[in-house]
This record gives sequence, C-alpha cells and structure tokens, in this order.
Amino acid sequence: MTSLADSPNLPAGTETDVPDAEQAPQVDVAALGELLLGTWAEVRKEARQLAAKPELHKLEGLTHTEHRERVFGQLKILVDEGAIQRAFPKSLGGQENHGGNIAGFEELVTADPSLQIKSGVQWGLFGAAVLHLGTEEHHRKWLPDIMDLTVPGAFAMTEIGHGSDVASIATTATYDEATDEFVINTPFRAAWKEYLGNAAKDGIAATVFAQLIVKGVNHGVHALYVPIRDPQTKEPLPGIRTEDDGVKGGLNGIDNGRLCFDNVRVPRFNLLNRYGSVDEHGNYSSPIASPGRRFFTMLGTLVQGRVSLDGAAVAASKVGLTAAIRYAAERRQFNASSDTTEEVLLDYQRHQRRLFPLLAATYAMSFAHEELLAKFDGVFSGAQATDEDRQDLETLAAALKPLSTWHALDTLQECREACGGAGFMIENRFASLRADLDVYVTFEGDNNVLLQLVAKRLLNDYAKEFRSMSVGALAKFALGQARGVALKTGLGAVAQFIADSGRAQRSALALRDPDTQRLLLAERVQTMVATAAQSLQGATKLPQGEAAARFNTVQNDLIEAARAHGELLQWEAFTEALEKVEDAGTRQVLTWLRDLFGLTLIEKHLEWYLMNGRLSMQRGRTVGEYINRLLVKLRPHVLDLVDAFGYTQEHIRATVASGVEARRQEEAAAYYEALRASGKAPVKEKNKGKAANR
Amino acid sequence: MTSLADSPNLPAGTETDVPDAEQAPQVDVAALGELLLGTWAEVRKEARQLAAKPELHKLEGLTHTEHRERVFGQLKILVDEGAIQRAFPKSLGGQENHGGNIAGFEELVTADPSLQIKSGVQWGLFGAAVLHLGTEEHHRKWLPDIMDLTVPGAFAMTEIGHGSDVASIATTATYDEATDEFVINTPFRAAWKEYLGNAAKDGIAATVFAQLIVKGVNHGVHALYVPIRDPQTKEPLPGIRTEDDGVKGGLNGIDNGRLCFDNVRVPRFNLLNRYGSVDEHGNYSSPIASPGRRFFTMLGTLVQGRVSLDGAAVAASKVGLTAAIRYAAERRQFNASSDTTEEVLLDYQRHQRRLFPLLAATYAMSFAHEELLAKFDGVFSGAQATDEDRQDLETLAAALKPLSTWHALDTLQECREACGGAGFMIENRFASLRADLDVYVTFEGDNNVLLQLVAKRLLNDYAKEFRSMSVGALAKFALGQARGVALKTGLGAVAQFIADSGRAQRSALALRDPDTQRLLLAERVQTMVATAAQSLQGATKLPQGEAAARFNTVQNDLIEAARAHGELLQWEAFTEALEKVEDAGTRQVLTWLRDLFGLTLIEKHLEWYLMNGRLSMQRGRTVGEYINRLLVKLRPHVLDLVDAFGYTQEHIRATVASGVEARRQEEAAAYYEALRASGKAPVKEKNKGKAANR
Repeated sequence: MTSLADSPNLPAGTETDVPDAEQAPQVDVAALGELLLGTWAEVRKEARQLAAKPELHKLEGLTHTEHRERVFGQLKILVDEGAIQRAFPKSLGGQENHGGNIAGFEELVTADPSLQIKSGVQWGLFGAAVLHLGTEEHHRKWLPDIMDLTVPGAFAMTEIGHGSDVASIATTATYDEATDEFVINTPFRAAWKEYLGNAAKDGIAATVFAQLIVKGVNHGVHALYVPIRDPQTKEPLPGIRTEDDGVKGGLNGIDNGRLCFDNVRVPRFNLLNRYGSVDEHGNYSSPIASPGRRFFTMLGTLVQGRVSLDGAAVAASKVGLTAAIRYAAERRQFNASSDTTEEVLLDYQRHQRRLFPLLAATYAMSFAHEELLAKFDGVFSGAQATDEDRQDLETLAAALKPLSTWHALDTLQECREACGGAGFMIENRFASLRADLDVYVTFEGDNNVLLQLVAKRLLNDYAKEFRSMSVGALAKFALGQARGVALKTGLGAVAQFIADSGRAQRSALALRDPDTQRLLLAERVQTMVATAAQSLQGATKLPQGEAAARFNTVQNDLIEAARAHGELLQWEAFTEALEKVEDAGTRQVLTWLRDLFGLTLIEKHLEWYLMNGRLSMQRGRTVGEYINRLLVKLRPHVLDLVDAFGYTQEHIRATVASGVEARRQEEAAAYYEALRASGKAPVKEKNKGKAANR
Repeated sequence: MTSLADSPNLPAGTETDVPDAEQAPQVDVAALGELLLGTWAEVRKEARQLAAKPELHKLEGLTHTEHRERVFGQLKILVDEGAIQRAFPKSLGGQENHGGNIAGFEELVTADPSLQIKSGVQWGLFGAAVLHLGTEEHHRKWLPDIMDLTVPGAFAMTEIGHGSDVASIATTATYDEATDEFVINTPFRAAWKEYLGNAAKDGIAATVFAQLIVKGVNHGVHALYVPIRDPQTKEPLPGIRTEDDGVKGGLNGIDNGRLCFDNVRVPRFNLLNRYGSVDEHGNYSSPIASPGRRFFTMLGTLVQGRVSLDGAAVAASKVGLTAAIRYAAERRQFNASSDTTEEVLLDYQRHQRRLFPLLAATYAMSFAHEELLAKFDGVFSGAQATDEDRQDLETLAAALKPLSTWHALDTLQECREACGGAGFMIENRFASLRADLDVYVTFEGDNNVLLQLVAKRLLNDYAKEFRSMSVGALAKFALGQARGVALKTGLGAVAQFIADSGRAQRSALALRDPDTQRLLLAERVQTMVATAAQSLQGATKLPQGEAAARFNTVQNDLIEAARAHGELLQWEAFTEALEKVEDAGTRQVLTWLRDLFGLTLIEKHLEWYLMNGRLSMQRGRTVGEYINRLLVKLRPHVLDLVDAFGYTQEHIRATVASGVEARRQEEAAAYYEALRASGKAPVKEKNKGKAANR
C-alpha cells in the first residue's frame, strides 16, 4: 500500500532543524499576544481589566448560599460598569456587537466561572431569547429591565425527562380563545423544567419553552415570557412551583433549580413570536412553513451559548497552563541537598510530554475559537447570514465546543497533577476551575450529542458529494497545496482539497511538512465517514427499528469521525494563524508548536494511519521520536508562549505561579551555603569514614 | 515479520461465541459477590454495615470547618464501634490482622472519603509510624491513646520543598548530649512540614521525620514522636508554629496544615528507634548497617497507605459504575413522545463503549487489589516476609496504585458525563467522589514517580536476566501455557513465561484466547524495557549529568513500560480469578469481561503491536470489531455485574440510581396513554392536513 508521507530522502527533524545558539529564535511576546487577542482585542482587554477586580473574583470556601449572593452582586457590578449591553439593540443603549459581546463574556471565566455562566443565563439565554425570538414590542417592553437586572430571569427549556432532545419537551402552552391567553402547564413530573440558572432564587421571570397548542394543533416548541416570582416578595406567583437543585459539582454561585407550571396564564402578547404568531382570532402563522425548519431556526438563535463555552474553555486552559508551566520552571525535586544543581521539573521529558502537547492544543483551540467567533459575528450581524452560513456556524460550534471543553478538563487536571499536592490546594485554583468547568461538557449540548450532529452533517455531505465513489476510489486521492479547506467546515471542501492534491502525490515530504499533516488529518476524516456511510448503505430503506440498529453499529465510529473533523478544523486554524505572524523567530517557534499539535494528533491515532496504509511502519516509528525532539526545541520558549496569553497574576491568582517557590529555594540554598562555610555542616553517615580519614 | 496472534483458521468472535437464547448464560450474582469480597469478606461486610450508617455519611454543602468537625466526630464513632484496632498488637487489644485492617478501612470510602483518609492519617500513618518504627516501650506508652483518639496526631514527613523525595527533607533532629534530648528544627520556609492531616486543628502530637544528627554525623531520615499542641487548650506548644491549608479540591473533612519547629526539644526516648537508636552516651546504632537500605526499610513499613488507596479507588469506581449503569438501564432519550418505545441509554453503542470497558477494568483492578492485599498481609504478618517479598510488595503497590487511582477519576468522570446534567448534581455523588479522590493520584507517592520506581525495578531485572541477550533474540520468544507469571511481579518471571512458551509459537490462536492476550501484554512490557535498556547502555559510565540526560530521553517510554507492566498484572489477576469461578454461566460472562479488558488494552496500544510486528494489519483491524461484539454480548449482564459489587443504596446514595427515572417515565407514559384515549390529544402541525382529511 502506498504510504503517502513516507520519504527516504528527507527524514523528519534533520539536523538543520536545530538552530545554532546565535540563531536561536526569540518569541515576540507582545506581538503574539495581540495575535491571540484576535479580532475583538480591545473588548478582551477591557474585559480582562474588569476580570482583574478583586470584587469579581471567586471567594473559595463560601457556602453555596453565600456564593450565590456574591455572584448576584457581581452581576450588578457588571451592569454598573456598562459591561453587558454589547449584544443588545442600539435603540436600547446596546452596541449590536455580537462577536465582541461573546469575547467579553468569555474573559469573565478567569474571575469566576459562576459569574460567566450566571451572566450567560441572564443576558445570553434569558435576554437573548427575548432578543432573538421576540419582536420589537417585546424588546421595548422587557429588554431594558433585563439589561439592568431589574428582572433576573431563567431560560426554561430543559426538562427532567428531556435535555438534549428539546423537540420532545412536554410542557404545553395552550391558547385559550375565550380569554385570549396562553395556559402554560406541566403535565407530569418528568416535564418539570430542570437545572435552570436563576430558577431556585433570583429569577422573577422566565422564557418558557413549550409545545404551542392552538385550536387542537401542536405547532411545536415555542418560547413564552412568563413571570414566575413577585418582584417585591420574591415569592413564587400562583401556579408556579419551584425547587432548588442545591449543591452541584461546581458553579455553586448559580441558583439552579426547577420550575413547574400549574395552568399558569399569560397574555397572548407574551408569546415570543418572531417565528410563530397567534393573531387575535386565534390563528397561528409563521414565516417558516416547515415545522422542522422553524424549530431548528429558533434553536439556532441560541448557538451563542456553545460559542461562548468554547471560548471560556480555552481561556481557562490558558490560565491553568500559565500557572503550571511557571511553577514547573521553578520547582526542583530530587538531589536537592547535593552539590549539583537540580533540574527544574520542566526539564524532565515526562513533564514536557504532559504539558507541552496541551499547550499546543490550547493554541490551536484559541485560533479555532477566533474563527468560530468571526463566523458567529457574520451570521448575527447579518453580514454573512445565508442558510449555509448558519449551518456552517452550527456545525463549527458543535465540532469545537466538545473538543475544547473536554480539553479544558484534561488540561486543568494535568496541571493540577503536575503541581503535586500544591495543585490540590484550592489557592492554586486548578481544582476549583476544573470543578466549575466540569458541566461545560454536558450543557448547551452534551458533547457526545453535539459530535453526533457533526457526524450527521458529514454523512449528509458525503451522500451529496460521493454518491458514486467507492472507498477505494477515495483512497487514491493525495497530497497538495490547498489552504484552509476544513474551516469551510463541510466535508465537500475537505474532499476537494484532497482531490486537488493528487498531483503532488509523489512528492517527498516529511511529517513536519504542513501539507503532510493536513493530508493525514483530512484523509482520516474522509475515510472514516466513507466507511461508516458504506456500512449504512441501504439503511434508510429499512424499517425504523432496523435502521436504528444499523446506525447503532457505527455510532462510536461516527462520533470519532466527528472528533477527527474537529481536530482538523483546529489544525487548520492554527496553520492559518501562522501566516499572520511576521516575526521570523515567533513564526519558527509557533511552527514547532503547530507541528507538535499535528504530530500529537497523528500519534494518538497512529494505529489508524498504519492500518489504513497512510504511514509505513518505518515512518510510524519516527512520530514519537519527532515529538520528543520538538519538546526539546520548545523547552526554551514555553514561558514566552504562556506569557503571550496575556493573563496577569490578577487573573492567574495561583500561589505556585507567584515566584514564591524560587524565593524559598534561594533561602534554602543560602542556608546550606552558610552552613558549609561555617564548617559545622554535619557529615553524612556514609561519608563518615572518609571524613575521619581526611 | 511474524505476527504471533494471526491465524486464518480460527478468527476471533466466530458465531459459536453467540449462545442460543435458551443457552444464554446467567450470572450467579451472590457467588460472584463473594468472590469479589475476597479473602477478608467478613471484615468487608462488617465495614459496609458500618459505612451504611447515615451518621458516617458525607453531608454536602458544609463549610470546610463544619465538615472537619463532623469527620472528627465520625472518628470517635469508629472508636466506639471497635472498628479501628485490627492492625494493632493483641497485647493492646488489637488483632494483628493486617490485611483485614486495610480491607475494612477501604470500605469507608463509600461513607465519606474524608473519613477514610482521616482514619488513615490517625491509625494508618501516625499510629502506624509508632507501631512500625517504634519499639514496645513506645507502643505501650503511646498506642492506647492513639487508638482511642485521646491523642489525634499528624504524620509529619512531607515538606513544602520535598514531597516525593523524602531523603532530601531538611528538618533536623540534633542530639544534645548536655540534656539528653533531641532538638527538632525547621531551618527555612521550604522545610515546613506541609499538607499534613490533623496539623491544622486536631493534632496534639506528630511523628516528625527529620535528618537525625548525632555528634556531627547525619544518620539520615528518622522519625520522632513530638507533642505539638496542649491537649486541653489545643494551642500550639512553645516553639511550634502551625498554618492551615484551608480549602482544598476535596477531602475538606480533613484539617490539612503546616508545621514548623523552632528548636523544639523532646526526650531521647521519643526517637522511634526500631531501625536506629541513640544510647545514653550519645552513640548511634542501627540493626541495618547501610544508611540507604535502612532508609528504604523504614519507608517500606509505610506501604499500607498505597495499598489502601488502591483498594479505596476500586471501591469508589464500583460505586460510580453501579449508579451510572443502573441509570442508563432506565433513562430514555429522543423520540420520547412518539409511539415507538425508546431505547434506553445502555442500548447505545457509544454508551456501552464509554462504560463497559471501565467496568471490565474495575473487575480487573478489584482482583488485582486482592492479590496486593494478600501480599501485604503476608509481609506484615511475617508469614511471607523475605527481602524479596518486601520488594515485590513495594513494586506491586507502586504499579497498581497509580493505575487504579487514575482509573477511579476517569471512571467517576465518565459516569458523571454519562448521566448528563444529573451527573453534575451533588446528590448523585459522582462529582463529590471525584473531587475527594483527586488527590489520591499524587499522595502516598505521586503516580508518575511511583511508575518510575517500577520502571527502575524492571530495568534492574532486565540487567540481571538479559545481560547477554539482544532485543532481536528476545523477539524470538513466543506463546505458551504458563500461568500467573506476572503476579510474581519481576520481569524475570515474565521472561521465563515467554521463553517457556516458545513451543506453542505456531499454534493458531485467536485474540480471545487468553494465551494470546497474555503474550501480547507480556511481550510489550519486555520489549519496551529492553529497548529502553539498550538506549541506556553504557550510561552508568557517563558523568552524572550526562547519564541523567540520557535517562531523560527514555523517561517517558520507561513510565509507559511500567504502566504496561501494571496492566499485565491486572490482566493476570483477572484471569487467575476466573479459575475460581465454578458456575459456568458466570464464568462465561466474566470471560467476556476479561476479554474486553484485554482487548481494550491491546486496542489502546494497537500502534505498538502493529509497529512491532506482534499483530498484522488484518488482525489489528479485527480488534475494534471484536470489542464491539463483546459489548453486545455483555449488555444483558451488566446490571448483574454491578449488583455483584454488593453495594446497597445506602452506599450508592445517588438519586439517579434509585429507580426514580423509571417511575417518572411510567407516569409520563400513562399521561400520554390517557390523553390518546380521551381523543383530545393535539394533532401535530405536520399531520394537520392528514387529520383534516380523515
């Protein structure tokens, strides 16, 4: 079988890779920092200044009741600081700056993830539902009070019985012609709204998602604005029952809870009717004829949750890595009392293997998030808002959010372990951040469910593009020069790239060549999808149960294909970002880091590349060695690379990263130095004889 | 290259694997439960009855101050219940039952990990130091008060500057001939004792590890009994400074803190002098001449911490999997409101892929822990206590504890995610258990450091056994029938097995054949060690710095080899346990589970098997398929397999595992059934036309 990336005449990591000491590249930290800040750099800087304020920081050791109060107070600070209106209409004092709005909120994660998410509930979900699903009358009536926190609110979509499967929620909103009202009802326990921020305590209204029933017809899920508590007494209004979710694994600054509606009546006006109206005669109408398309359009307006979780996960990973790498550059272990200078932890190969690939992935995810944010802004500003743009945005968000949120948990855990016992102390924040971010992997779309959505998109694309091609034919595609193909997100673009690349098939290229990496990553996506598609051939003609059973046999492979697609997107984003780097030294170091990201992915899936003939055994064996060489090359630069993230100690707030470790070592070294100089240092037992003989 | 496990005539997973419905095996849950309870079944049952008591359960949402008080009170309950004396001398009311003692303490993790670890601090570290490092006079003087909690104490070994590297601690205990006392001193900040349970609040004494200096000679690390607080006022004694570690990532029922000694004096008697004494003339003596061997002997007495963490991690994994699998067997998602019955989560391939391999590994680790516990009991009872036994015990503990503690975190996290948002609610305990167990991976020996110890043992064995053999020669070894080789822990035994197996080399064996699995797992260990050893050849003759640098280039590979060794040990333990199963159905199901464990390991390292010629491409591609078939076979039995763990709802205490989900679904189904029967069910919009036409 042909091994595309094999080449006898240009082995990876030749000596020319290693620069002379004089030529050693330097990272331009300031310029790299600006690149990382991205399109909304100014907003991010403002938000970071805000997030540096002690009054916005998480206080550890509070009860969940105290923490909730603190965070509610912090939301008021955000209002006072004018930090929350970016997304809202200019007519109401907003800026209609959708990308900037998300960028700003993401940065709050460094202050307290509860603050970020509670803000997200109030303005990104509850407020955004009114903004995107309501009409101008609704905006004028409700948004000002939502914006200034006069009305804290819950986003009441998820039910106990149905989380990811929103279409199946059981709450009903039945139009009563007699009174021109909607009657909101919770028919059974499984239909209670569940896990809602602001529901346990603070919320006095909610955007409630329910099956809209008009004249005996169920028009599917719509949202209604429903008051739930008396604004003065904070007691639940008649017909509303609430429960408190109590303590959670994290995010305890948020009052998650449950809501139940016993035939609660709201005026017809309260239907957020941008995509579905009922007129005064009780007739339903919608600008979108297909109930299915209407449903997905309405849900699509809420994609910003996923976008902002992706960005916040990247920010939290940056904070964790900054602390762990700074500590590892100071901490010494073993041979401390001997005469030789100990190595710092960061010099150990294992420590590098643990942290550097996470650093590389964090860079990739940071650049990929910027692409996602730009796409989001294009759609929500209307600048690039075709149906295809919307679909691409949703696929991109569904591909990136799972990978970055899982990555954040892995990164924070590895950082915590890399700091030993100190990593477990809450003052060093790894455990705290990890606990708070834990739920990011299942909310705003369970990660596994989101990856299945991506997989289905990839299968659809495959069906469109490759109906007539066999896997064997696909395998003949090979290497070329096309750029940035995957960020167009569809599988079609990937395939086009591979097709275009055929001419370069026989070029001799090393693993460090970006085209080799791209081809390996892209072909894996394509082949995995094609293989699953072949297994599914004819399944659509089977009875529903059998088709589902057939699908189930490839479910795991499809989810892995979606993950591979997300990885390719991240790699592409990193590679595109490299082209914006003008400083040669910075570009060199970032190129090594990108290579480390690409090679780590290839190593992770090496068995696939071997079994599918994409790498020879011989070349396969060089992957690990090449990675080890990259670790050594990157070692002198990793402090610069975390400095470029631009977070100050006000954001990091980890004692281990404060320089205290180095100061303790200096004190210890000075003590031993003085002891030796005094001539009173004890002799070691094993040297006693020698000492006596001297 | 020869692919040992390749065979054209007996493919894995032939149809004969699939039993007829009539012949479908059944698991004898009760018998399997007894097998899992192991040698100390009765102790475990007693301890589980204790752990079922509400007054010993963790209360969530307490401040760390409240939680500490609760746990201290729980320790008194353990004393009152007579649950703590198993390890202590019969002369003092104990039972000298070392294995049973550990088994009993491990089970407390289901009540509250803080209770388990605080008990471990008091009786397993502080008390055990007096027991194992002190002499009979010390026992009589101090153990009674330690046993009945009159004297809570800290185990003061770790310092801020040195955790894993105990030999380098900087606290000194200098003998003062003038007063016949030891002077304990903390020379600088890095030498403060750190992370000590009982140090922040409860401890009134401590076993302090210090460099013992007598007449100008440093005899290395020894332990001394040092009062630290006034028993009445609980104020620190003169010369003692304490600090509170405050809130941690978990285990907040324990008052971890720091201790500093400003020339604190204790009588000569207070040196725990089993392995090193100072007589009334100020002369040091020890029954162990070599300072190095003396140090490792003293530390070796403390191996029980690692043993008990291994067992507790397995218990916590069992609790998590029981809850997640029971929930997955009830929970339905998607198509809820349609007429077809939804599948439960456990029917989804992805869900099976997420949970079943963790279940298989938990079984393997449970059996491996029993072997470890037996080894521990043999050494500590003196029944099997040669130097080799002690070394094997330490290697086995160092190999198993890292794997089981990491596994517990992975398992609890996957279980939490598999339950979606409900998994994040503290009432379902996954997040709580995970937070508490987090530190298990770095305490009582950082996992990476422990695996390096194992690797060094493997390298030493290699040097002894294979001095004259090349890797090429090793590769000629092949398959056979020897059993249980790896549990002898040394690499020599592994090699012997492989050598003995040569005769069977050409047998045609499938992946499901245990000998194939064993050979694949064993050869990987051996080859990885051999390869690293070759890289290190001659390194011992290099200057220290260069030798260290050389070692550093293979550090990661060596740690992975140690991990592979631990995996082999687990697989062996599972396979040996299978032989004790008499019921055919149970043995069949457990064999599938063992195969799933073995195949999952082989899949995880598949690239290695391919690149090293141990599996052909063709055979490699069948591994994943075979795993998928095993998932399907195991699906009907997984509830039995978690039931056999034997934990009741008093131990599980997760709402999701209480049957509440099924009851909610029944209520919802009944509602829809009644609605349909009433004829008042709303018509779906997309069916409106059809309905109108009817």
